[in-house]
Amino acid sequence: MKRPLISLTSDFGVQSQGIGCMKGVALDISPDANVIDLMHGLPDFDLSAASRTMETVKFLPVGYHVCVVDPGVGTERRAIIIRTKRGDYLVGPDNGVLISAAKTLGGCEKAVEITNPKYMRHPVSPIFHGRDVFVPAAALLSMGVRIEEFGEELRFSELVKAPYGEASVAKGAIQSRVILVNKFGTLILNIQQPVWSRFGVKKNDRLVLEFAGKRRVEAPFVDTFGDVGIGQPLIMPDDYGRTEAAINMGSFSKTFGVKSGEKCVIRKK
Amino acid sequence: MKRPLISLTSDFGVQSQGIGCMKGVALDISPDANVIDLMHGLPDFDLSAASRTMETVKFLPVGYHVCVVDPGVGTERRAIIIRTKRGDYLVGPDNGVLISAAKTLGGCEKAVEITNPKYMRHPVSPIFHGRDVFVPAAALLSMGVRIEEFGEELRFSELVKAPYGEASVAKGAIQSRVILVNKFGTLILNIQQPVWSRFGVKKNDRLVLEFAGKRRVEAPFVDTFGDVGIGQPLIMPDDYGRTEAAINMGSFSKTFGVKSGEKCVIRKK
Amino acid sequence: MKRPLISLTSDFGVQSQGIGCMKGVALDISPDANVIDLMHGLPDFDLSAASRTMETVKFLPVGYHVCVVDPGVGTERRAIIIRTKRGDYLVGPDNGVLISAAKTLGGCEKAVEITNPKYMRHPVSPIFHGRDVFVPAAALLSMGVRIEEFGEELRFSELVKAPYGEASVAKGAIQSRVILVNKFGTLILNIQQPVWSRFGVKKNDRLVLEFAGKRRVEAPFVDTFGDVGIGQPLIMPDDYGRTEAAINMGSFSKTFGVKSGEKCVIRKK
Repeated sequence: MKRPLISLTSDFGVQSQGIGCMKGVALDISPDANVIDLMHGLPDFDLSAASRTMETVKFLPVGYHVCVVDPGVGTERRAIIIRTKRGDYLVGPDNGVLISAAKTLGGCEKAVEITNPKYMRHPVSPIFHGRDVFVPAAALLSMGVRIEEFGEELRFSELVKAPYGEASVAKGAIQSRVILVNKFGTLILNIQQPVWSRFGVKKNDRLVLEFAGKRRVEAPFVDTFGDVGIGQPLIMPDDYGRTEAAINMGSFSKTFGVKSGEKCVIRKK
Repeated sequence: MKRPLISLTSDFGVQSQGIGCMKGVALDISPDANVIDLMHGLPDFDLSAASRTMETVKFLPVGYHVCVVDPGVGTERRAIIIRTKRGDYLVGPDNGVLISAAKTLGGCEKAVEITNPKYMRHPVSPIFHGRDVFVPAAALLSMGVRIEEFGEELRFSELVKAPYGEASVAKGAIQSRVILVNKFGTLILNIQQPVWSRFGVKKNDRLVLEFAGKRRVEAPFVDTFGDVGIGQPLIMPDDYGRTEAAINMGSFSKTFGVKSGEKCVIRKK
Repeated sequence: MKRPLISLTSDFGVQSQGIGCMKGVALDISPDANVIDLMHGLPDFDLSAASRTMETVKFLPVGYHVCVVDPGVGTERRAIIIRTKRGDYLVGPDNGVLISAAKTLGGCEKAVEITNPKYMRHPVSPIFHGRDVFVPAAALLSMGVRIEEFGEELRFSELVKAPYGEASVAKGAIQSRVILVNKFGTLILNIQQPVWSRFGVKKNDRLVLEFAGKRRVEAPFVDTFGDVGIGQPLIMPDDYGRTEAAINMGSFSKTFGVKSGEKCVIRKK
């Protein structure tokens, strides 16, 4: 039998013993699992960045994927499990961080609220559901416990929405949004790559990006940084299925004063 | 047979190749082990912080737990193994970092000094016993080598004491000590949670914390940050069995000028 | 059968989801592998530092070792596999980072260029060959795919040279080079330890280090930091088979203004 894969994502920072404790809890329940870190360097409480990282689960094997970016822990927010059409189980808070990932994995097949105390670690910390609720659920699922046993089924329409939607083509432009600014100051936009062909953009086409306050940036649509000179802006497919706006060897975010969450309207020049 | 668990804790910082080398050495000896990182972001040479992190081994499965916070490496300090009543083996320097963990795991059952060169990696680096002494010992124990084979038994009274003791109730107050200041400036105190009920403290009781130099801070005893306003101090159980003094969305350490190691006397108001 | 070991080294920084994605790809192909991080904190694009870290593969079990320090990704640089005499497979870009490691593992036995698209992950990102080319190759090798199937054999003389050679003894001096400055400001030199006995240096001998611009530093040859006073320079064997020049509790690099890549001529005093 293939060893199950459990992945962990959080905003704890990699220097936290909380990650080690979550791995210990997972392996105590599911000792043959491969437990891997997907990402622990998410900005604190940044649901948009967390959602985008969870989308990259598509590069992992079908498995049990936990997200602990959870500003609402200790409040009434629900703990949930989503089964995807690809066969994964996504486990985390019902705050939208799992929704976009579920879509990239074929869509939600079933969702339940985790309420059965039998499947939690006790005492349940009021502020660390990662260790006491989410990871035990993922590990137990990997051992064969059925999703129905964790609690009541939820309709998808009841779940908290994703922190961002998909870019659309309207008014002769791509209507997009910045969903992440990475450590290099590069913007990640909510544009999946098929949007570009639908909008009729080819390599080296020149585009105009307009941000709030009418800041306009002109940039070519290219494949890689080296396609423009040092210090020049560019827009290109990123490594994980979306689009990035960057400056070759520079910071787009700092140079043009753009932050995560801003709208970006893109037109052909 | 269940796969053995080996955990690694150090002050190397996560960006160090030393961690990868220790994992390689462990897996070379014990290829079926689950080797996990508990924590590598401990402040350099901070025995108190290391001791507190090792206490969280109780959240891991029974296993082989190595601590490499070792300012005395290269001197006459001993290398030791402690077998706990829970069944774990703790491996590291005899500088106190393993003692409090052993207590949280049921107590020390047996301790030996590691002196048998047969069970070390050669040449033994004078400054990296983690790789050449501690990790080989943990991995060999996980493969069935008996603790007695590593060297002479030590009496517990011979071992270097823990860097902190337990808080006590005396003179109408809890006599405690700051054992860690975390990255948010929150203080961790050496108060296990049963002390609070023994001292008769209930939720929302107001307490007065007195630090050296007579600095006094008033704070309620609560469950979570959200129980006080932003910028307000609080005192509450932490996630790992002790107590923290924090400011909601602020730094207790900076605001009140408190450092790790300071005494803290707590009275009811 | 022993579980295969796959190690990952990069300049991504540990907070990157790219590492998690590479692990996922590896485990999808080779689910029984132990996939470990050797080091992800290498300075961006620093081939010399990467080469030195890859040398420490000798502390890992015989396995499949991937290096993703790859400033030339997206250009014509080759992707390669080297089989070492010890039995390891080194996988990465043909930019010199694997050469010194191969030498420490007994030498190159065979090298091939990776060109067979059947063994890549598609679509191949133009900027992330770690995930789409190198890791799939390592994982497939661990599952028994033969090195010949990946592409044409390369002669060693065709491969890009290592970023540094070995120190030599000439003109009554050791002619060496700084190959890394670590986070403490300690210099790592390209001097393997046998050079010292060949040059006739014994413990506590006083040496003179001369850097470009005729900066001269006098330091004893010792075993460990504690052999000199605080603030004093020293030169000693490092933990991984080379030599370091350091200041006890200080930064050699800052104090004397020395950078990675500089020449260092060492004479007896």
